Amino acid sequence: MAETSNTPLLDQIRVPEDLRGIEEERLPQLADELRADLIDQISRTGGHLGAGLGVVELTVALHYVFDTPRDRLIWDVGHQAYPHKILTGRRERMKTIRQEGGLSGFAKRTESEYDPFGAGHSSTSISAGLGMAIARDLSGGTNNVVAVIGDGAMSAGMAYEAMNNAGALDARLIVILNDNDMSIAPPTGAMSSYLARLVSGKTYRSLRDRAKSFSKHLPAPFREGARRTEEYTRAFFTGGTLFEELGFYYVGPIDGHDLDHLLPVLKNVRDAESGPILVHVVTKKGKGYAPAESSDDKYHGVSKFDVITGAQSKSKGNAPSYTGVFAESLIREAEEDDRIVAVNAAMPAGTGLDKFGARFPDRTFDVGIAEQHAVTFCAGLASEGYRPFAAIYSTFLQRGYDQVVHDVAIQHLPVRFAIDRAGFVGADGPTHAGSFDVAFLTSLPDMVVMAAADEAELKHMVRTAAAYDEGPIAFRYPRGNGVGAEMPERGEILDIGKGRVIKEGSKVAILSLGTRLADAMTAARELDGFGLSTTVVDARFAKPIDTALIARLAREHEVLVTIEEGAVGGFGSQVMQFLAMNGLLDGGLKVRPMAMPDRFVNHASPDGMIREAGLDAKAIVDTVFRALGTEASRLLQA
Amino acid sequence: MAETSNTPLLDQIRVPEDLRGIEEERLPQLADELRADLIDQISRTGGHLGAGLGVVELTVALHYVFDTPRDRLIWDVGHQAYPHKILTGRRERMKTIRQEGGLSGFAKRTESEYDPFGAGHSSTSISAGLGMAIARDLSGGTNNVVAVIGDGAMSAGMAYEAMNNAGALDARLIVILNDNDMSIAPPTGAMSSYLARLVSGKTYRSLRDRAKSFSKHLPAPFREGARRTEEYTRAFFTGGTLFEELGFYYVGPIDGHDLDHLLPVLKNVRDAESGPILVHVVTKKGKGYAPAESSDDKYHGVSKFDVITGAQSKSKGNAPSYTGVFAESLIREAEEDDRIVAVNAAMPAGTGLDKFGARFPDRTFDVGIAEQHAVTFCAGLASEGYRPFAAIYSTFLQRGYDQVVHDVAIQHLPVRFAIDRAGFVGADGPTHAGSFDVAFLTSLPDMVVMAAADEAELKHMVRTAAAYDEGPIAFRYPRGNGVGAEMPERGEILDIGKGRVIKEGSKVAILSLGTRLADAMTAARELDGFGLSTTVVDARFAKPIDTALIARLAREHEVLVTIEEGAVGGFGSQVMQFLAMNGLLDGGLKVRPMAMPDRFVNHASPDGMIREAGLDAKAIVDTVFRALGTEASRLLQA
Repeated sequence: MAETSNTPLLDQIRVPEDLRGIEEERLPQLADELRADLIDQISRTGGHLGAGLGVVELTVALHYVFDTPRDRLIWDVGHQAYPHKILTGRRERMKTIRQEGGLSGFAKRTESEYDPFGAGHSSTSISAGLGMAIARDLSGGTNNVVAVIGDGAMSAGMAYEAMNNAGALDARLIVILNDNDMSIAPPTGAMSSYLARLVSGKTYRSLRDRAKSFSKHLPAPFREGARRTEEYTRAFFTGGTLFEELGFYYVGPIDGHDLDHLLPVLKNVRDAESGPILVHVVTKKGKGYAPAESSDDKYHGVSKFDVITGAQSKSKGNAPSYTGVFAESLIREAEEDDRIVAVNAAMPAGTGLDKFGARFPDRTFDVGIAEQHAVTFCAGLASEGYRPFAAIYSTFLQRGYDQVVHDVAIQHLPVRFAIDRAGFVGADGPTHAGSFDVAFLTSLPDMVVMAAADEAELKHMVRTAAAYDEGPIAFRYPRGNGVGAEMPERGEILDIGKGRVIKEGSKVAILSLGTRLADAMTAARELDGFGLSTTVVDARFAKPIDTALIARLAREHEVLVTIEEGAVGGFGSQVMQFLAMNGLLDGGLKVRPMAMPDRFVNHASPDGMIREAGLDAKAIVDTVFRALGTEASRLLQA
Repeated sequence: MAETSNTPLLDQIRVPEDLRGIEEERLPQLADELRADLIDQISRTGGHLGAGLGVVELTVALHYVFDTPRDRLIWDVGHQAYPHKILTGRRERMKTIRQEGGLSGFAKRTESEYDPFGAGHSSTSISAGLGMAIARDLSGGTNNVVAVIGDGAMSAGMAYEAMNNAGALDARLIVILNDNDMSIAPPTGAMSSYLARLVSGKTYRSLRDRAKSFSKHLPAPFREGARRTEEYTRAFFTGGTLFEELGFYYVGPIDGHDLDHLLPVLKNVRDAESGPILVHVVTKKGKGYAPAESSDDKYHGVSKFDVITGAQSKSKGNAPSYTGVFAESLIREAEEDDRIVAVNAAMPAGTGLDKFGARFPDRTFDVGIAEQHAVTFCAGLASEGYRPFAAIYSTFLQRGYDQVVHDVAIQHLPVRFAIDRAGFVGADGPTHAGSFDVAFLTSLPDMVVMAAADEAELKHMVRTAAAYDEGPIAFRYPRGNGVGAEMPERGEILDIGKGRVIKEGSKVAILSLGTRLADAMTAARELDGFGLSTTVVDARFAKPIDTALIARLAREHEVLVTIEEGAVGGFGSQVMQFLAMNGLLDGGLKVRPMAMPDRFVNHASPDGMIREAGLDAKAIVDTVFRALGTEASRLLQA
């Protein structure tokens, strides 16, 4: 006999069309079941939980009121799209989320017709939605376009750019501002304070109430004047002020956990003939699951956990995390040098700067999701003699690329870029992979770019960056734990542009950048075993490269492999450029620059992604054997 | 005998210290002389005029009230900094502006201690200023930091990010919003409309006036209530509303051409003990020079001109401009295909989309200075089956880089990037050089990147991009005029990833990307003359590269030169990667990937910059001779 289901109503929902067939009174029950299912699912797989819990009722209401997928529903970032996935035909596959071959942790176009626009980075939804709205209008369509964006994402410039444009185009676009008063970290920025004031109701409602009670006391002839004053006031500044100034019709704030509030408002908004509308919905991240509600980060991203206690099964690595080593090393340097300041963009914990901030609160700046500003803010600090460290994930530094070029590199300002999550990042997949930083930074004149081979190297690089005042300098390091390297008490200042020879050989040379070093050593031992004496060098610097060392490697070896966890155009390209322009390839050196393949690698474990990308020890060995051709075949036969 | 000077007061000003020594009543005269001098200077050299004319009084007032350079004065973009240059010791050198070895057309740190932060791209000044203000506070300094930013620059997300952060940090920072109701083109976006409403005074002044006149009619006991209502109103929403919501104290709008208004306001602001202040100054671009005031673009950037008539000595090229060819080609394609739409970021004339917009007003979108949004807006349009062309200069596409990666490339959305001003741009110098687009685009998976060798090729590429729906595609073309190529009535659809052989030879191969083709041909003819039979290929595609053709070039030639007008990491790196990984270098091919040097090349003529960069015909010949070594020496002796 079948067990009685805990989610009888949810079990009936295969697609949102089914949802729209049930009675409105039963939606709260559906929301409860959806929430329970989400907690149950994520307790088994791990993943993003807090954001999804906060939008359970909103997700139900949106799919109930809007005709998805004909109406386009765009989830900004996508952290909060898990309940949406459950309701849109992906419930069974939730057990695969963020695993190799499984569902993405974000919205993804190739995954479902209910995901009209993918995400991963924040603050893109209004731009994308405006494009869809304009496309609809050009084609004479009638569908709705709804973008759901968090309050944290509103600190990003591109959300403002999109609102500025939407207001001017007066396009029919619905923006749901999901205000849970925190994105991943506590909120920062004036916009957050502003939203809080709106929610607390101190702005227009106070005035309106005051004006009303005031006019009651007026003699009748003056009441009309008072009423008109109030109308005038309201028309010009109230109801949402900042958003209305940008051309949006503002509705809210409304309780995002109360379907009796959500449904009529969303229906009104759906049926309104108007330009852009912003619905300010107040939700609670982690809502309905006590351990999440009481946690600092509201269970933003969790490991598998026990549903009753909320205890997460954290896998403890033996080695410290790169992030932690960065934070501790920077604190160490900042104790010696009060010109060191640290800047992050809404990622205090992710970058480790929460620790730095606890030690040096006045020298730590979280600018919000605002990478463009973060970089130029650092440039301003550097122009005054400070030593700013901009701690930004590789993938998010893409947002500040022009600022790196225009405000930092062209002016030779010594901003230090601490680039976390470099290379493959595992479960977050291609939107978060740190694939391009070495390429987009090494093509800039005078940029110094380092990559740490292990956590001790990272410590040296933090100190090197702190000491380097000649111009911009960057250092990258991966997600996750180090290799267990012996740690010095304090880092050493490295010679700029000098690599280190790890192992001397004579036939094959492997020139490794960053954490590919471990696999390079594994490969070298295997090659040695085949009688192919192999040199291994940790390049340390992607720019400037160690030209003397590389020239020697080229002259003294038959095969030269470079390897990096990054796209073509970076370290290997710098090496090839040097070798070619200096005639070092003219003698027939067998050079093999190994880099990421020319495709976006789907989410999997980081090791799985490295294997899939052809950048593991086996791939190095294979590359060397292929380079040696017939000679290698003989070795293999022997 | 010395001629009587027309600018007796200005002649006494060597540095701002001198300015601060003269009587306040004489400042209007100084402003008049400064304006006359500016017109006279730029009539001889050409340059940015309109923006400078608009800020003559403001510049005088700022240097009078503030203690520059101790007080930091940051000019956003820098177009408007010419009067500032005249007052800060650079008057004599104004005749060299934008010329090789001369003054930069923008603010530049290396040029003067009065330029604390360089610019060129817009909307950076608030971020930089906030960094300086925080640096001051950390050091216990007392200097002021003043950022002057135009209203057009306020559409950019980074200005908003900076305000959002400044408001939260509550740092003492003065932002002068120079509202001339146009940046280069007429204003776009909701912010512009908002500023216009502020200036027209319909917001708080109307209300205040209304409340005042209303309260006059009240019986005395109610007057106090009315006064308090007005105060309440003002405290919560008025006086600047949007800016005050972001944590700024708003002052204005004030007349930026009236020193009697400017001086007291700036003095008050200087002496205020407060957090961030925004002073809204209304100016008129081109002010005081009739031909500029009556011109559409207010003489934004001019050639040399006749002071009396305003007639500019435009040098007429025989060939059409690339920009013009792009616009006409796109119009031609859009006539056949109503899914083609065009998007630009505050550059309708610069990109040629003004012409497209005149023909297809409903299919043309100017999103303001908002490249991030522009790219993702295009992605949204593409996701609905439209065929958007994002027409953005190479240097400004850097602003939308993450959006190209995250919203376009990862999702394989067919956004077409029309990249104008690729390569060196001449007088605008390094901030505007299009150096990095090929590198930062070719490192992205699946991106198709083309470069036009001449204007006919550009026409083919526009059609090719229009027809290509598989994913993102980009094409780059330089500033200036074409080479006079014969133009087809309509472009052809090119085979993706196929180059074209221009000239067959046997010993040397030159594989050229883009407009370096002309110099490649010149070099080839010279090499042929030395008996070095030279093949020339127009690669057309930087990605995907023509692997079959390149393999043949490698096999059949002794020397292979690649050449591109871009940084290392782009086309040449793609070619090298292919050659190396496929063993095509193992035989000792003399390969020479020529790219931009590893330094920022200062402003000069585009040809001068190409020569300086070592990318002209002579450099190609030299590179081939050096590759051939002793053999070449013998040829030269022969």
